[in-house]
Amino acid sequence: MADTESRTGSQTRATTASEGITRRRLIGTAGATGVALGAVGAGAGYAAAASNKLEQTTALTSLGADAVMFHGKHQPGITTPLQARGHLVAFDLAAGAGRKEAAALLRRWSATAERLMAGEAATNDDTDVARDAGPSSLTVTFGFGHSFFSRTGLEKQRPTALDPLPDFFSDHLDKARSNGDLWVQIGANDSLVAFHALRALQKDAGKAAKVRWQMNGFNRSPGATAHPMTTRNLMGQMDGTNNPKPADADFDKRIFVPESGSPAWMVNGSYVVVRRIRMLLDDWEKQSTAAQESVIGRKKSTGAPLTGGDETTEPDLEKTDAGGNLVIPLNAHARITRPDQNGGAAMLRRPFSYHDGFDPDGAPDAGLLFICWQADPLRGFVPVQRKLDRGDALSQFIRHEASGLFAVPGGAEKGGYVGQALLEG
Amino acid sequence: MADTESRTGSQTRATTASEGITRRRLIGTAGATGVALGAVGAGAGYAAAASNKLEQTTALTSLGADAVMFHGKHQPGITTPLQARGHLVAFDLAAGAGRKEAAALLRRWSATAERLMAGEAATNDDTDVARDAGPSSLTVTFGFGHSFFSRTGLEKQRPTALDPLPDFFSDHLDKARSNGDLWVQIGANDSLVAFHALRALQKDAGKAAKVRWQMNGFNRSPGATAHPMTTRNLMGQMDGTNNPKPADADFDKRIFVPESGSPAWMVNGSYVVVRRIRMLLDDWEKQSTAAQESVIGRKKSTGAPLTGGDETTEPDLEKTDAGGNLVIPLNAHARITRPDQNGGAAMLRRPFSYHDGFDPDGAPDAGLLFICWQADPLRGFVPVQRKLDRGDALSQFIRHEASGLFAVPGGAEKGGYVGQALLEG
Repeated sequence: MADTESRTGSQTRATTASEGITRRRLIGTAGATGVALGAVGAGAGYAAAASNKLEQTTALTSLGADAVMFHGKHQPGITTPLQARGHLVAFDLAAGAGRKEAAALLRRWSATAERLMAGEAATNDDTDVARDAGPSSLTVTFGFGHSFFSRTGLEKQRPTALDPLPDFFSDHLDKARSNGDLWVQIGANDSLVAFHALRALQKDAGKAAKVRWQMNGFNRSPGATAHPMTTRNLMGQMDGTNNPKPADADFDKRIFVPESGSPAWMVNGSYVVVRRIRMLLDDWEKQSTAAQESVIGRKKSTGAPLTGGDETTEPDLEKTDAGGNLVIPLNAHARITRPDQNGGAAMLRRPFSYHDGFDPDGAPDAGLLFICWQADPLRGFVPVQRKLDRGDALSQFIRHEASGLFAVPGGAEKGGYVGQALLEG
Repeated sequence: MADTESRTGSQTRATTASEGITRRRLIGTAGATGVALGAVGAGAGYAAAASNKLEQTTALTSLGADAVMFHGKHQPGITTPLQARGHLVAFDLAAGAGRKEAAALLRRWSATAERLMAGEAATNDDTDVARDAGPSSLTVTFGFGHSFFSRTGLEKQRPTALDPLPDFFSDHLDKARSNGDLWVQIGANDSLVAFHALRALQKDAGKAAKVRWQMNGFNRSPGATAHPMTTRNLMGQMDGTNNPKPADADFDKRIFVPESGSPAWMVNGSYVVVRRIRMLLDDWEKQSTAAQESVIGRKKSTGAPLTGGDETTEPDLEKTDAGGNLVIPLNAHARITRPDQNGGAAMLRRPFSYHDGFDPDGAPDAGLLFICWQADPLRGFVPVQRKLDRGDALSQFIRHEASGLFAVPGGAEKGGYVGQALLEG
C-alpha cells in the first residue's frame, strides 16, 4: 500500500453492493429479509423507515458495511476514525509458553482479525454473536509489552522505547490493571461485533495466554453529531482538537517508526501509551463553565482558545486581559500540552470514554481510556506528562489509575502475521 | 395521542430539516462546520464521506436526529425500538424524604427527560457531554418499586401486582443489586447522549434520593445489520422472535394496564421485571451448534423452529423424528416460553446485553439485562419463569443474579409529570 494512501485513511473502504453480495453474511441476511441489496451502502435505510420503527426493515448502511483493511503498512486502529465501542485487553503468556507458542498465537490472532474485519466468521466454532452484521469498521490491533521479551527470550530485540515509563507524582496506578505481555485493542461501531471479536481472540489465546486485564470504552456513534471533527469526553470538553493530522507533513515521522528506525522489526510500527484516567466528575461539575474553561484554556462550547477564534485557531499564549493577567493561564491544560511548549513532542490521541458504574458514595467510576500513539514515547507522552504532572490545572480533577506501554509493530503482509519479523527474526 | 398511533410506534419521529434548524444544538453545530442542513435526516452522510473518514464531515443522519416523544399515553422506552446503549439505575429515597420530596423529584426528572429527549440542554449546569449531538432516540422511563410506597406513606396505593416475585429455585440474587424505591431506564443510540442523561438525572436526584444500583447495557447499532427484526444476544441466538407485536389485536391488553384497571394511577402503565441474567458463556460455547439448537428449539442461524420454516414460522410442537423423539425437546427454551404453554402469558421483552469485564479465571461477566413488560406480572413473567425454573434446558447456562419489579405509570401529559396521579392523587 502506498504511503499516501495509508496516511489519508483509505484503509477504510465502504463495502459496495457488488462486494457485499459476495460475502456470506450479507447474502444470508438479504435472502431472509428481502432487503434490496442495491441499497446497501447508500445510507437510504433510516429516513424511509422512521415512521414505524418497531418493525422497520433497515437497510445495511455504511455503519455496518464499512470495513477496514487488516493488511497494510501500519496496523489498523491507529489512524482509523474513532469507533463507537472499544475493548482493551492485556494478556500474559501462560507458564511454559515461550517464543514458539507466542508466534503461533500471533498467527492465529492475525488470521482471526483478518477474517472478522472483513465481516467473515471466525474459523472455528464461531459464536454467531456478530452474525447478520457487517464488519462495522472493526479493527484489531496487537502490541507487545516489556515483559513479553523476557518471557520469550527475546530481550535483545526489546526496544529501549519500551523501558518502563518514569514514575509520575500524580499517578495512582493499579499494577494488576497495568502493562502485560500482550495488548489487544478492538474497536467497532457495533457493540456486538466488538464483543464477538473479543471472545474470538480470547478463544484463540487458548492455553498460550490468559487475560490480565480488560477495559471497555465508547465514543459517539457515527451520525449522532454533525460535528465529527473532534469528539467530546465525559467532562464535556472537546478532546483531540490539537491532534496531529494525517495530512501534516511530519505526521508519519511523529507517529510511526521510520524505515531507518531500530529495532528493524518495529519499522512502520508505533508505540502506544494506555492510561485509565478516572475523571472526578462530581468535583468537576461543581465548577462554573468559566472556571472549567480556565482550567482547559479553551471555550467549552466550541473548543476555541480563550483568546478567540474557532476550534482550529492558534491560541495567543501571550495575550493578557485588562488586568494584565494571561488570558490562557500558565497552568491551563491546553497551554501545557502544546508541542511548542514541549520541544515539539506530539502524539496522536485516540481515546475511548469509559463508565463502569458508580462507587458506593454515588461517584461515577468513569473517565477516559487515554490511548496515544507516537514513534517514540520519550518524545511523545513522557515529556508532556512530566509537565502535566507538575503543573496542570486539570490534574486535581483526574486520576491516572492504570498504565501500559506497548510496542505495536507495523501491519502484516498478506499471508503473514503481526510480529512475524520479531518472532521469526 | 391516539391509541393506534402509539401502538404503531409513531411516538418516534425523525427530525426533519425544518424542525432541526430551530433547535439550539443543531444550529450551533451547523454554524461551526458548514454542514448543509438540507442533508439532515437524509442519511446522505456516511457513504459520501467514506473515502477520507479521519477528517470527514458527516452529516447528522437520522441516528442522531431521531427523537422520541416524552409525552404520550404510555411512557417512552417500552415500545420504542431497541437502542444501542442503555443505563438502568435504581434509586432509594434518602432518609427523611417522603411523598413531597418524591413528587418534586419526579417533576424535576420529567422536565429533564422532556428536554433531553428533544435534544435540548438540561435546565441547570448542563455538563455539555451531549452537546453537538442530536437526541439519538433517547428515552427515559420511570418506575416505582414495592418499597417506595412504604417510604412515602402510600401503601394504600400500592398495586398488588408489585407483591414480591416468588422465589425461584435457580435464582442467585444479589439483594444489593435488586429492587429499589425508584427505577430509571435510559436508552439512546449514542453512548455519550445516554451518559449525559444519566448524570443529569442523578444530579436532579440531589439530596432526595441516592443511587442503589446501576447497570450498563448495549444492543446492535442501527444500520449494523440488514436484519433488524430481531436482535441477537451474547449467546449468538436471536432474541425476541416470539415477542408480541404492537400490531397484534391484544397487544395493548397484554402489555398495558387498561382504562378499567386498578389502581387508577396505573391506567396505561405497565409492570416491568428486570433481571440481570449472567450467561455462562465458557460452558455454552463448548456446546456444538446442534446441541445449542436443541437447548433452544430453534436454528441458531435463522431463528427458525427446528421443525422448519423461517423465523416467523409456528413451531410444530408435536413433530417427531425418525426415532420417534420430539424434534423440539420437551425442555427446549422456545417450547417452554410459548404463551400457549403458559395459559396465554405474554410479555414484551426489550433487553440490553451487558459485559462488565472478566472474572479472574477469564470467564466474562456478561449476559442479558432482561427487561420485560406486561400488564400483570402474574400473567406474564411469573408463570413463564416458574416453568423455566423447573425444566428449561437453558437454565444450566445462565444465572439470574439480580431482580427488580417496578410499576411504570402511563405517560405524562404536557405540563404534568410521571407519577403525578399517584403522588397528588
